[in-house]
Amino acid sequence: MKQITGGVTAAQGFAAASCEANIKYKNRTDMAMVYSRTPCVSAGTFTSNVVKAACVQWDMQIVKSDAPMHAVVINSGIANACTGKEGFDACEATAKAVENALGVPYEGVAVASTGVIGMQLPVDKLVNGVNMMAETLDESLEAGTAASKAIMTTDTINKEIAVTFEIGGKTVTLGGMAKGSGMIHPNMCTMLGFLTTDLKISKEMAQKALSDVIKDTFNMITVDGDTSTNDSLIFMANGLAGNDEITAEGDDYNTFFEALFYVCRYLSRKMAGDGEGATKLFEAHVVNAKTKDDARTLARAIVGSNLSKAAIFGCDANFGRFLCAMGYSGSIFNQEDVEMFIQGEAGSVEVFHKGVPLDFDEDFALKILKEDEVCVYVNMNEGTEEATAFGCDLTYDYVKINGDYRS
Amino acid sequence: MKQITGGVTAAQGFAAASCEANIKYKNRTDMAMVYSRTPCVSAGTFTSNVVKAACVQWDMQIVKSDAPMHAVVINSGIANACTGKEGFDACEATAKAVENALGVPYEGVAVASTGVIGMQLPVDKLVNGVNMMAETLDESLEAGTAASKAIMTTDTINKEIAVTFEIGGKTVTLGGMAKGSGMIHPNMCTMLGFLTTDLKISKEMAQKALSDVIKDTFNMITVDGDTSTNDSLIFMANGLAGNDEITAEGDDYNTFFEALFYVCRYLSRKMAGDGEGATKLFEAHVVNAKTKDDARTLARAIVGSNLSKAAIFGCDANFGRFLCAMGYSGSIFNQEDVEMFIQGEAGSVEVFHKGVPLDFDEDFALKILKEDEVCVYVNMNEGTEEATAFGCDLTYDYVKINGDYRS
Repeated sequence: MKQITGGVTAAQGFAAASCEANIKYKNRTDMAMVYSRTPCVSAGTFTSNVVKAACVQWDMQIVKSDAPMHAVVINSGIANACTGKEGFDACEATAKAVENALGVPYEGVAVASTGVIGMQLPVDKLVNGVNMMAETLDESLEAGTAASKAIMTTDTINKEIAVTFEIGGKTVTLGGMAKGSGMIHPNMCTMLGFLTTDLKISKEMAQKALSDVIKDTFNMITVDGDTSTNDSLIFMANGLAGNDEITAEGDDYNTFFEALFYVCRYLSRKMAGDGEGATKLFEAHVVNAKTKDDARTLARAIVGSNLSKAAIFGCDANFGRFLCAMGYSGSIFNQEDVEMFIQGEAGSVEVFHKGVPLDFDEDFALKILKEDEVCVYVNMNEGTEEATAFGCDLTYDYVKINGDYRS
Repeated sequence: MKQITGGVTAAQGFAAASCEANIKYKNRTDMAMVYSRTPCVSAGTFTSNVVKAACVQWDMQIVKSDAPMHAVVINSGIANACTGKEGFDACEATAKAVENALGVPYEGVAVASTGVIGMQLPVDKLVNGVNMMAETLDESLEAGTAASKAIMTTDTINKEIAVTFEIGGKTVTLGGMAKGSGMIHPNMCTMLGFLTTDLKISKEMAQKALSDVIKDTFNMITVDGDTSTNDSLIFMANGLAGNDEITAEGDDYNTFFEALFYVCRYLSRKMAGDGEGATKLFEAHVVNAKTKDDARTLARAIVGSNLSKAAIFGCDANFGRFLCAMGYSGSIFNQEDVEMFIQGEAGSVEVFHKGVPLDFDEDFALKILKEDEVCVYVNMNEGTEEATAFGCDLTYDYVKINGDYRS
């Protein structure tokens, strides 16, 4: 596997477009489309929030159905959540606009939205945007990047990636883009991800791979339980690479799985590090836990705690807050077994050893904590399972951004 | 029932003291003692965190035992959590210092700590503090207030209250003090509460009342699942009011229960409104939920969401965030049933009606949101249960306070 330049247009047969539709933002692109003339196998994972945005309800129908997918249309500015029947009708109108403009069945057009909750989308502007984009679809890498930028909200960096790998002698490309930046309750400000590949794979195996990969990637950016109304990850595979179709587990599946994991992990870390107002990536790596669930729960609790996040912002090796978060996570453990380290490029410093706080080198800890990426490493000494969670620090700018979001 | 001036020394036979023990803070009082020469029935509720502070472990033994309680000694500055055997020994040394100074069995002396986690207490200073306080114990209201101030950490206001009520023709007094201010993950910065009464009540009924009352008071200040290593609520009843002992449910128990609820609710709201860096009290009142658990879960989710809290700070009627928090709370409901209002002294404005966002009067909503106490009122239209949760807004100062706490 090899990382290459590009994003959603890296794989054969995928085009993208973006435009200024004036949905809510002014003087910037706010709509994007990803399109494959060749029919695609689709897979998706969506928010577990009881309050699902209209677009999530729309997309869940599509991904569940056997209809081939051809396009996804995305807008930023308004989330189309808590909008009732009018919101759902807006999804259908958007998909039908794609059918009218490009001649693909509207049942194969997904939609995604991000932005303010509880506001209706202007359907005329959406349709107008689709028509503009249908005329400018382009398979260039630049078109993919432009689409990726159009879906940003409070994001500060563009997040896209592409890789190639070999399946049965054929070169397969997998690309993706993502937006998401509300990283305190991370999924709340909507995580959207779009993955495109020319791999040939059955719908069943595509969904299986996607559902498995998110457990240790996108789902590990989160405070457990916090999920936006709109979170969506959509996967499209058009089969143009010409490999023998992957229909079961085995070497080919594993090769694909590894590439998918790499792409999703990359996008997850980018999102965490670009948390709203964040100054640094904050990871927790828990090893030797009793179960995989314990490892994930403990790691998420550490990076999810506001007090932990504020300590990381203040470069304070306040490890008691990490232990406290582990303690209320719901996982059962014995603090007399726990070893905790703070790690960075500069090295590693143990701060807590089997129930006892250590008299560690504060200057060295401070040096590590001032880095752009800080990791809390915890050895539970109880089993063999491990997990990593991705977060960011809690800063003044987070409050500023979210204290005045709607206006 | 009638509210009177005072706190932990309001009831007959209770004395208090405080001193500058220099545990960690300088030039302020940082130790307090509450004492009853007459033996007390005790009850308590403690953190559910797996990582329990040494003092919590000590107190749980005492409250479980049949030994009468005489005193509780509290320090601020260091939490005595994650401190291993050395931390537990510090509790015993403190209790034995009380036995030496006042001649009451050390098995009847509770201890409580609040402050930095992962740091050992200086035992010599604790013992010295106990000796100083033993000589200045005083039954005046002023001594109670001074004790209440000594246990503050990032609190900005003193929190105490007292009430009187009649049981079988006898006047009973119930007083209390509390500290707690880490109100984003509210219980994390340690909630301590101490209640004293001259009521005569059996240990069993005291514990029952306390355990029931906290469900709708102290436990409703919380993001569900977040619990400090040190949270403790300790109740002492010395029986000096001379009423017939309460040993079962009935009118007398109900009268007491009502007073206890009033006192605990008062202290809870004071704590929430004094959240770290908070500018206002943020309440959620959920009515007509299917079950009591649903009502509590939904109310807590609303006030526990960082995005909700940031919106309240910014006076933004961003009701989609409240709905989103309800959606990920774990409670199952239909958004088509929900009616949501924003309420204050100035009145009430409906913002969401049965699945549809309303075109409400933003100016009026802003007027309400600028008040010191803001309530989100939600009618679930699914049942008959209700609950209220207490929180505060998320501000720049929260980040400032917690980005630099240890130093």
